[in-house]
Amino acid sequence: MKGNCVVAQSGGPTAVINASACGVIQEAMKQSAIENVYAAHNGILGVLNERLFDMGKEDSAAIEGLKTSPSSALGSCRYKVKKDEDYARIVEVFKKHNIRYFFYIGGNDSQDTADKVWKLAEETGYEMRAVGVPKTIDNDLAFTDHCPGYGSVIKYLATMTMEAGRDTEAMYTADTVNVIEAMGRNAGWIAAGTALARRSEEDAPHIILLPEVPFDRDRFAAKVEYYLKRIGRAVIVVSEGTRNSDGSYIAEQKGDFAKDAFGHTQLGGAANFIKELIEHEIKVKARFAIPSTIQRNGIHFASLTDSKEAYLVGQKAVQLAVQGVTGKMVTLERVSQEPYVCGTGLAKLSDVANGEKFLPKEWISDDGFFVNEKFIEYARPLVMGEVQPLMKDGLPLFTRFSKYFI
Amino acid sequence: MKGNCVVAQSGGPTAVINASACGVIQEAMKQSAIENVYAAHNGILGVLNERLFDMGKEDSAAIEGLKTSPSSALGSCRYKVKKDEDYARIVEVFKKHNIRYFFYIGGNDSQDTADKVWKLAEETGYEMRAVGVPKTIDNDLAFTDHCPGYGSVIKYLATMTMEAGRDTEAMYTADTVNVIEAMGRNAGWIAAGTALARRSEEDAPHIILLPEVPFDRDRFAAKVEYYLKRIGRAVIVVSEGTRNSDGSYIAEQKGDFAKDAFGHTQLGGAANFIKELIEHEIKVKARFAIPSTIQRNGIHFASLTDSKEAYLVGQKAVQLAVQGVTGKMVTLERVSQEPYVCGTGLAKLSDVANGEKFLPKEWISDDGFFVNEKFIEYARPLVMGEVQPLMKDGLPLFTRFSKYFI
Repeated sequence: MKGNCVVAQSGGPTAVINASACGVIQEAMKQSAIENVYAAHNGILGVLNERLFDMGKEDSAAIEGLKTSPSSALGSCRYKVKKDEDYARIVEVFKKHNIRYFFYIGGNDSQDTADKVWKLAEETGYEMRAVGVPKTIDNDLAFTDHCPGYGSVIKYLATMTMEAGRDTEAMYTADTVNVIEAMGRNAGWIAAGTALARRSEEDAPHIILLPEVPFDRDRFAAKVEYYLKRIGRAVIVVSEGTRNSDGSYIAEQKGDFAKDAFGHTQLGGAANFIKELIEHEIKVKARFAIPSTIQRNGIHFASLTDSKEAYLVGQKAVQLAVQGVTGKMVTLERVSQEPYVCGTGLAKLSDVANGEKFLPKEWISDDGFFVNEKFIEYARPLVMGEVQPLMKDGLPLFTRFSKYFI
Repeated sequence: MKGNCVVAQSGGPTAVINASACGVIQEAMKQSAIENVYAAHNGILGVLNERLFDMGKEDSAAIEGLKTSPSSALGSCRYKVKKDEDYARIVEVFKKHNIRYFFYIGGNDSQDTADKVWKLAEETGYEMRAVGVPKTIDNDLAFTDHCPGYGSVIKYLATMTMEAGRDTEAMYTADTVNVIEAMGRNAGWIAAGTALARRSEEDAPHIILLPEVPFDRDRFAAKVEYYLKRIGRAVIVVSEGTRNSDGSYIAEQKGDFAKDAFGHTQLGGAANFIKELIEHEIKVKARFAIPSTIQRNGIHFASLTDSKEAYLVGQKAVQLAVQGVTGKMVTLERVSQEPYVCGTGLAKLSDVANGEKFLPKEWISDDGFFVNEKFIEYARPLVMGEVQPLMKDGLPLFTRFSKYFI
C-alpha cells in the first residue's frame, strides 16, 4: 500500500524518544511504499489542528541529530482524545493528506488513540496502518521487557544519587540526610533504578521509598536511625507516588499543612514531606532535591543501550507496517541475559492500552526499603554505554527542525 | 623547613575540589621538605578532634581517582572556628604531629581560619606555613579571576537548563513555564552561568533572576507574558538568593504562607514561589526543579578546564609553601582571553577572608532579567572540555579512602 506517513510523539519526553523518531523517519525515507514523511506538531494535536510538517525538507544532519537530542523534537502533548468528533477529525485529516501509515511514539494512552484511529478509518473504508512505538521513563507498559527511555532515566538519576550521595558523605556533620525525589506516580521503577548506584553499604541510596510499599512512618524513622547510627548519614530516594496505607499520597497527609503564598492548599512534594518528617522526628538537618523534568532529558549522560533500542523499535515499526502489520505495538524482548541481547516482538495496541506493569513484589527487599538482586539483574544491562552528544563551545548541541508545514 | 603537612577541605563540596586535593597530595609527596602527608577528616574539625589520616598509606590509584570523584573525599564541615580555645587546640595538634605546612581548600571562612592558625603558631614560636587553595561554586571570592568549582557547576546547570528547556518546548501546551532554582545565596554567578545555554531566542533560559537585581513582581510578570506571547513558553532560572527591594528573600514574603506539616513556618524555596506566582497571576501551568546539591557534584559532565585549574592551584600551593610562602591564597589570573590562558597569582589570606565578589552591574542586561555579552565572554572559556569519569557497569566509579588514622 502506497501513501504518506505521519510520525508523532506523545506524553512526557524522554532522553531517547527522539532516537525512536529518528528510527521511524530514517527507515520511512528508505521505504518505497512511503511517499512523504510528515511529522505531527505536538502529537495528536498536530493531526487535529492539521499542523503537519514535511521531514523530507529538513536537513538530514538535523534528522541524524535526533539521536543526540533530548525531549520530543516533533513537539508533544497531554491531550487525551475522547470525543467521537476528535477521532472523526483525525481520520478526515489522514484522508485529506493520503496518510496510510501512522506511527505513534508514546505510552498506553497513545497506543489507545492509535488503535481507535486505525479502526475507525477501516470502518469508514479507508485503508491505513497504525503501529505503536513504546516510550516512557515510567517503564510501566505491559507486554514489553522494558520501555525505551527507562534505561536512560535510571542511569542519570542513579548517577545524580551517587554524586549527591558523596556530598552528604562529606557534609554529614552539617547536612545529615538528603532526600531525592524520583518521578513515578504509580510505579516505583524509576526510584528502584537508583539502587544501581549502591555498590557498598556506604554508598547512596540507603533507603528507597516505592509506591508499591505502603509508607509506615515509624518503620521508616527506625530505618533512618539505623543508618545514622551505622554510617552517620542517610540518602533517601522517594518516589513521588509514595502512598500511605489508605492509598493517599504521603505529600497530601497534611491536615494543617501549607497554604501557599496565594491562599491555596498546597500539595507539596514527597521529598519536602520526608525532609520535614526527618527534621521533626529525628532532629537532624535534612536537605532535598527535586530533579523534576531534568531527570528525563539527560541526553548528556544517557544509556547507549537505551538509545539504540529506542532507534530499533522506531525502525522496526516502519518495516512491519510496510509488510502489512497494523494495530500492534513493537515490544522489546530480552533474548539473553549474559551477554545481554534484546530483540523485538509485537503486542496488540488494545492490550497495551489497558495494561500497567508494577515493580514485582519479589524484586522488593523484605523490609520494603530497597530492591534486591533480581531487580539489579534486570536493570543493569539497560544502563550500559553512554550516548556522546554533539558539543559546541563546551555545551551540548541539539536539533531543532525548521518545520515546513504542509 | 622540614615537617609534615595537613591538607583539608571545607564548606560546600564542588565537582573538582578533589582535583585540588589531588594537586596538593601528589605535589606534597614529591617534595623532600614534606615528610608525611596527612589529611584532616572533615576539615578543621579533623584537626580539632585529631582525626588525621595518612595519605602515604592510601593506594596511589585512589589518590589519582580524586581527579574524577566529586565532593570532598577528605570529608568537609561547616564549623566556624571562633573561640580562642579552638585556635589554641589547632596549634597544639599541629605541634604534636610536627605539622609545618597547612593547605586549606575552601572559601573565605576557611582562608580566615588558615590565616589565624598560622599567625597564632608564629606568635607562640612555632614555625609553620599556611597556604590557601580557593574553592567555591559561588565564584564570590575576591582577588581571583574565578574560583575552581565554578566552571563545572555552570557547565552542568546550563546543560540541565538546555535539556529541561527542550522538555518545556515540547510540552508547552500542558506545562507552559518551568522554573529551575540555582544555588547562590548572595551572588548570582551560578544562575548567570546558565545564560551560556542560550544560543537563540528559542533556547532556555529566557529569564534569569539574580540576587543583584531587586525582584519586581509586575515587571517580572510582564516579562513572562512577553515570552508566552512570543514563543508560547518560558524557562526561568531563579537564584535561591533572589531578593525583594527591601532585602528580604522572595521565598520569605509569605504573610499567611505555609506552615509545614509539623506546624513550623516554612521558608519555602525561590523556585516554588515563582511557580506559584506564575500560576496565580498569569494563569498558566508551571513546574519547578530544585537540583540542590546535585548541581555542585556533577563530575560526570564537569569542565575539564575547571578540573585542571583546580589541580593547578593545589599543586602550586605546595610548591610555594615549600619555597617559603605563607599567609597567602593561590589565585587564578587570566593571562589571555583568545586563546584562553590562565596562570596563578597570590593574595593575602586576610584580604580574601574579608572580600566578596558580586556579579558586576555592567554585565547584567539593561532590563535586569539576563546577562550580556561581557558575562558570556568571561564565562565561556571556563566550561570548555569534559572530565571523563572512570566507569564500571554503566555508572561512574569514585574514590573512597581507607583512612588510616594516625
